[in-house]
Amino acid sequence: MTYLDFYTNQSILITGGLGFIGSNLARRLADLGARVTLADSLIPAYGGNRFNIAGYEDRVRVNIADVRDPYSMRALVQGQDVLFNLAGQVSHLDSMEDPFTDLEINARSQLSILEACRHENPDIKVIYAGTRQQYGKPDYLPLDEEHLQHPTDVNGVNKMAGEWYHIVYHTAYDLAAASLRLTNIYGPRQLTRHNRQGFIGWFVRLAVEDETIRLYGDGSQLRDLCYVDDAVDAFLRAGASDAVNGQVYNLGGPGPVSLLELANLLVKIAGTGKVELIPWPAARKRIDIGDVYSSSAKIEAVLGWRPTTSLEEGLTRMVAYYRRYREYYW
Amino acid sequence: MTYLDFYTNQSILITGGLGFIGSNLARRLADLGARVTLADSLIPAYGGNRFNIAGYEDRVRVNIADVRDPYSMRALVQGQDVLFNLAGQVSHLDSMEDPFTDLEINARSQLSILEACRHENPDIKVIYAGTRQQYGKPDYLPLDEEHLQHPTDVNGVNKMAGEWYHIVYHTAYDLAAASLRLTNIYGPRQLTRHNRQGFIGWFVRLAVEDETIRLYGDGSQLRDLCYVDDAVDAFLRAGASDAVNGQVYNLGGPGPVSLLELANLLVKIAGTGKVELIPWPAARKRIDIGDVYSSSAKIEAVLGWRPTTSLEEGLTRMVAYYRRYREYYW
Repeated sequence: MTYLDFYTNQSILITGGLGFIGSNLARRLADLGARVTLADSLIPAYGGNRFNIAGYEDRVRVNIADVRDPYSMRALVQGQDVLFNLAGQVSHLDSMEDPFTDLEINARSQLSILEACRHENPDIKVIYAGTRQQYGKPDYLPLDEEHLQHPTDVNGVNKMAGEWYHIVYHTAYDLAAASLRLTNIYGPRQLTRHNRQGFIGWFVRLAVEDETIRLYGDGSQLRDLCYVDDAVDAFLRAGASDAVNGQVYNLGGPGPVSLLELANLLVKIAGTGKVELIPWPAARKRIDIGDVYSSSAKIEAVLGWRPTTSLEEGLTRMVAYYRRYREYYW
Repeated sequence: MTYLDFYTNQSILITGGLGFIGSNLARRLADLGARVTLADSLIPAYGGNRFNIAGYEDRVRVNIADVRDPYSMRALVQGQDVLFNLAGQVSHLDSMEDPFTDLEINARSQLSILEACRHENPDIKVIYAGTRQQYGKPDYLPLDEEHLQHPTDVNGVNKMAGEWYHIVYHTAYDLAAASLRLTNIYGPRQLTRHNRQGFIGWFVRLAVEDETIRLYGDGSQLRDLCYVDDAVDAFLRAGASDAVNGQVYNLGGPGPVSLLELANLLVKIAGTGKVELIPWPAARKRIDIGDVYSSSAKIEAVLGWRPTTSLEEGLTRMVAYYRRYREYYW
């Protein structure tokens, strides 16, 4: 049985299920014959969007609920085989302006969810979406899982705590939990309403709108980007594997690229937009983490996963998606 | 000017100030001519004890307040030169039974305190009490600051988050904050009412009461213990140093000792009590972290600190203290 066959008739809960990664995962799972429930708060500034499941409205069950509500979570985890735990506050900027909301969503709610699993469904499998932001400014590159975690913003601290509650619940209670530490994920169904949740969705919007993408400094900072279908494939592999329990894994991209190369490629693919270099604002330079990209060697070794979609291919699909459906996204 | 002279006429706030380390630090600071304010909730099961400042009642100001109360903290940090941030829920067992209370005290309250500092007193110095528990089961020994943090209980996760909020507030806002990751600290004024907050206070009580100290397995697990006067000295050095800002440091003991050696030495010093080896309870074996002790090389290099009190000397003073004042402690 392959990891894809594993999901036939499995009951799957996805927190943040109407969001970017959650909805792409949900569509794939429905195609694989799983019974899928999506929990999402649809908080306006966050990534949840009902259009993300367009065409799948009758094939997935949508339950509007906030992960901060322990009663909903307690009811929702019952009877599920796998929980893909993707709900989160993902804006680093917001986490500094309102650290308590970030803590409630990214730390306290994770404890609620894990307590719900422990008491209501101790045999459930849980895959958590961590972030390479937990590492902070790299000591060396590429980032591997042996790299110290020294986050540089409140969001990174709370995501780190949220991840480690999962691992502790594995250690102490044998909960089948693991974490994938995501690099920049991009693709269709990503939030493009504002630029507070990462740069790539915003860059695509600017290109599609024939606007100017502004990069700080010389645009030479390296990043890696992983196409959402590849990320979804990693979640599917992890959710079907016993070997990952209690472990954390980086998900990187196919290779580092400078922001300038990325923006130029995007403008070339779109045929619209332009790129401009501007001086660093002092407040941004201060919290900049320089070059950053991840090694996926650990997850490749255990699950055979690697990012297979090239940046050119991924951006091409993403631009086409937003050209067609922009009315639902901005 | 030495680091001791630094404290003359300085205004110092100590959270958890009626607790074990806080009260020993407060007494020392009062002797050095500092203006000392102690914030403590006096939660019955925790370490706060009014007798801990016996003889110093007129030389320190006591303010009963819980760190979970953001209004009190906002008022208390105003006008302070140094905050020794020691308040915490320190029981690993309690953190598993009631993870939310542990989160409120060890994570959320730390954010409140840091927000209070940032808004009300951005020039304050903050020294946070971290714990070697943040490292979890060691990958190698002795633990140094390059060791990965992979805590094995909720308390370790929340202490890790609490520490990293401090470092983030240094990175993002230039707050002069640092963390000392404490190993097992022991000495006078330690809680001995119950055995939920570490073993050493409880062992001393058993010895003084001529009871049996029970060790799991063969008692060969190694630990290091740091006498409280040495720990206080480290806090004083760190609070007076600009070099520590944004840094984390281990505080270890003078060298590892097995629990059996420790218990036998304690019984010999006390002249009462006895030691018994019993089989591991399965639930305890599961969460046991084996041998653990810390290297203090990093803090020694920057601040010249090292633990100087031998285990024999420290235990002798501790036993004498509880022989004299046991009525106030159990």
